[in-house]
Amino acid sequence: MVSLGDLANIIGAECIGDTECIIDSIADLQEATQGQISFLTSTKYIPHLEHTSASAVITTASLAKEKPGNFLVMKDPYLGYAKAAQYLANIPKPAHGIHPSASIAEDATIGENVAVGAHTVIESGAVIGAGTCIGPQVFIGQNSRIGEDSLIYPQVAIYHDVSIGARAIIHSHAVIGSDGFGYANESGSWVKIPQLAGVTIGDDFEMGANSAIDRGALTDTTIGNGVILDNLIHIAHNVSLGDNLAMAAMSGIAGGTKIGKGSTLAGRVSIIGHLDICDNTHFTVNTLVTKSIDEPGVYSSGDVAIPGKAWKRKLVRINQLDTLYQRVKELEKTITQLTADRENNND
Amino acid sequence: MVSLGDLANIIGAECIGDTECIIDSIADLQEATQGQISFLTSTKYIPHLEHTSASAVITTASLAKEKPGNFLVMKDPYLGYAKAAQYLANIPKPAHGIHPSASIAEDATIGENVAVGAHTVIESGAVIGAGTCIGPQVFIGQNSRIGEDSLIYPQVAIYHDVSIGARAIIHSHAVIGSDGFGYANESGSWVKIPQLAGVTIGDDFEMGANSAIDRGALTDTTIGNGVILDNLIHIAHNVSLGDNLAMAAMSGIAGGTKIGKGSTLAGRVSIIGHLDICDNTHFTVNTLVTKSIDEPGVYSSGDVAIPGKAWKRKLVRINQLDTLYQRVKELEKTITQLTADRENNND
Amino acid sequence: MVSLGDLANIIGAECIGDTECIIDSIADLQEATQGQISFLTSTKYIPHLEHTSASAVITTASLAKEKPGNFLVMKDPYLGYAKAAQYLANIPKPAHGIHPSASIAEDATIGENVAVGAHTVIESGAVIGAGTCIGPQVFIGQNSRIGEDSLIYPQVAIYHDVSIGARAIIHSHAVIGSDGFGYANESGSWVKIPQLAGVTIGDDFEMGANSAIDRGALTDTTIGNGVILDNLIHIAHNVSLGDNLAMAAMSGIAGGTKIGKGSTLAGRVSIIGHLDICDNTHFTVNTLVTKSIDEPGVYSSGDVAIPGKAWKRKLVRINQLDTLYQRVKELEKTITQLTADRENNND
Repeated sequence: MVSLGDLANIIGAECIGDTECIIDSIADLQEATQGQISFLTSTKYIPHLEHTSASAVITTASLAKEKPGNFLVMKDPYLGYAKAAQYLANIPKPAHGIHPSASIAEDATIGENVAVGAHTVIESGAVIGAGTCIGPQVFIGQNSRIGEDSLIYPQVAIYHDVSIGARAIIHSHAVIGSDGFGYANESGSWVKIPQLAGVTIGDDFEMGANSAIDRGALTDTTIGNGVILDNLIHIAHNVSLGDNLAMAAMSGIAGGTKIGKGSTLAGRVSIIGHLDICDNTHFTVNTLVTKSIDEPGVYSSGDVAIPGKAWKRKLVRINQLDTLYQRVKELEKTITQLTADRENNND
Repeated sequence: MVSLGDLANIIGAECIGDTECIIDSIADLQEATQGQISFLTSTKYIPHLEHTSASAVITTASLAKEKPGNFLVMKDPYLGYAKAAQYLANIPKPAHGIHPSASIAEDATIGENVAVGAHTVIESGAVIGAGTCIGPQVFIGQNSRIGEDSLIYPQVAIYHDVSIGARAIIHSHAVIGSDGFGYANESGSWVKIPQLAGVTIGDDFEMGANSAIDRGALTDTTIGNGVILDNLIHIAHNVSLGDNLAMAAMSGIAGGTKIGKGSTLAGRVSIIGHLDICDNTHFTVNTLVTKSIDEPGVYSSGDVAIPGKAWKRKLVRINQLDTLYQRVKELEKTITQLTADRENNND
Repeated sequence: MVSLGDLANIIGAECIGDTECIIDSIADLQEATQGQISFLTSTKYIPHLEHTSASAVITTASLAKEKPGNFLVMKDPYLGYAKAAQYLANIPKPAHGIHPSASIAEDATIGENVAVGAHTVIESGAVIGAGTCIGPQVFIGQNSRIGEDSLIYPQVAIYHDVSIGARAIIHSHAVIGSDGFGYANESGSWVKIPQLAGVTIGDDFEMGANSAIDRGALTDTTIGNGVILDNLIHIAHNVSLGDNLAMAAMSGIAGGTKIGKGSTLAGRVSIIGHLDICDNTHFTVNTLVTKSIDEPGVYSSGDVAIPGKAWKRKLVRINQLDTLYQRVKELEKTITQLTADRENNND
């Protein structure tokens, strides 16, 4: 619970209306009831503003003029929503204290106020920073380190020699440090290349459910500060991701590729191995990247849905393209001839 | 073990032949031995029918005329196969009784005849319906509910405030209730938007291995009755899936998209966020959907494999298309001119 | 630690230089320090060779002439690297001995020198081969078998009736034996087809993080010897993979498809169900395969990234193709007419 005036300070907004109004939680404009704050980012939802029961609304100066009431006014109300929700959130943690069923190596270092859930395993030499919550059924391998104030959800697997900075949030079934996919071939059989290095991850990292980051072959896979990864993502060995990079679900990056800071990958983007992608590069959904990029900007590939019948015809047309080029070339020849003939005739 | 006559009643078929014949299991026509029932759905497999050792065959009235023998005759023998296999199956359950190593909160509600496997964690306020089997190493978060007669395989993670109906089947490494991928951006850094709502799922739900369903931001992610999800699927926050929707492996749906009932997604379909897709819409494999759809039917996108050399030429051809359009336009101009000239000459 | 001469014998190379030189580990040319061996496979990295501090380098006979020093010379130095790294690697195992918290059924068969980690569950009738290491929090279902000298990382789920050969390496969150996605449809509702068979896997299998292999419906899903699977892979029920097949991350194969030995799938390849793909077939990244293949070779589909604006124009151009074909056809007609007229005039 917080007064509207205090919440304004917390999120960096100007308070219009009753600064003493008490806010206890946050909700959509349509769902909000008394005691709740909501937010409005676009003129499109002004009708919802008119009918809302929210006690206050985070919005822009101009949208706040649409209706009398309590407002927290700021340039980016979506950012205000994020900050207000962080302040008001009351999300249950998956562990409290050290559960007696956890298996913690004697020489692991467990910081102050660390929680470790039931059936979790923390191996020799691991270091868990102060204030971190490790949920139940988590595995943390030898000599791996997790920074302070992190939150590791149940059933995460972190292999040996993985280093993660402060304030990480890692969701269930994430894997960090599995072997990179490296093999030599001997007479048709695959000979495994041991993956001897680890993974180094900066501060303020978030990783979604069922995503995987492979360890490096001879040097570490590295992830900068402030990187956010969604669900079902694949990061191969020796990838390097720059600060504040964001990857939406189901994207994958092959071995050794480097992507610069501030870049974004929409869902299901694929980037092949050994590329160098510059800072501030943005890939739209389903894009396949096969070449290095040194110009910031938006890149895309692929095709979008149309009715099935039209799609089948289109596939045929595309596969006839070579023939079409021949036909056009033939036409050009004939016409050049016709034109030449006509000019000769006119002479 | 069941008599053929009784099995006919169970699956809704007409029995031709020996109603007293004893059936103990089900197999392919080619593999079946005495005491087994098989099924035949298409004329394509009549040769297998001729050589089968199965004691009886589920098939259509017309196919049953191909050979003398014991038949269970019905319009849809594939449905009959499903029902007979359900009746005859003897699949081991991953837990029996409450294992002493399970960590169950004192105030969790565990129904009659519930099994809970080793090293499973069930948190405060959770409710497990009667007859449900929770395998080993499962996590069920605070206040989550699982309906009766459900089957949760080992190593499933269900976060807090998730509600699942009756008769669910959830496979290993499924995650339900992980955070949606929501962030605001402040001067280039990502500011997390806490995901405060939950997930609500109807009855008769099945979810495959390594699939993930994110919790809602302010209102729940919702899944209707009878929905089936295959492996490695991603359902983002605030998605809504209608009744009896089916999604094959590796499909993904971005945040806030709503898909109507009876729809089907083949493998690796991608649907971007905030779309509204009507009932009975069907997407073929690998399709990318970028617009709302209000006409039921089949939709497709993408391209299919050809030999690598031809594919490289095709990519070149497609990227020259703009030039080809210019060339055709140029030809049209020249020809218009030639035709006009000719007509002038003929005057 | 090994002498260079002995290491030459181990990897099958010829030693040039000091056979007594002691090697303790392996590193990149750029990172290597004294006591380390490195490798050079291409003229591209000769500059690194010139500046390396490595005590010896695995390379080809011709590259070894670039600089004086210690070399292990062989035709395929990348293979030499793999073998040297295997010999020198000192990777921590995720379990030692049988942890007291593991739940092992009384009638499971545990071979000599097997390790079983904390909170692991091994069910009735399971058989674990000698020398195998099962990490913590693993589940192994009834009657499943794992061959000797295998390594199962934490949080792997292996269902009942799964058989895996010797020397398997299975990474965290792999699932083997989950149900195939099989349903009949009854008046719009899905009726589950129980998946009654298992999974049979050969020797020398490796499986990446978060990958899943479904059990067969009536006969087993089968995987040959020497198959390697990367992360986030989906293998549906009744798929059959030939010996030494390799699949890179995020590839998926639908039900009943058979792929011959020695084939390779780059990342994110999709193969639909019920196809028959011959031996030694190779698919490039993101390819979608919709037809059986009986010619070995390389196959491809799809499109690659270009700047976003150009991509939008290209999509428009492709969707206008039908019209372009009409325009070209029209031009051909007109020109045929013009040419005919001209010839008539010339007569």
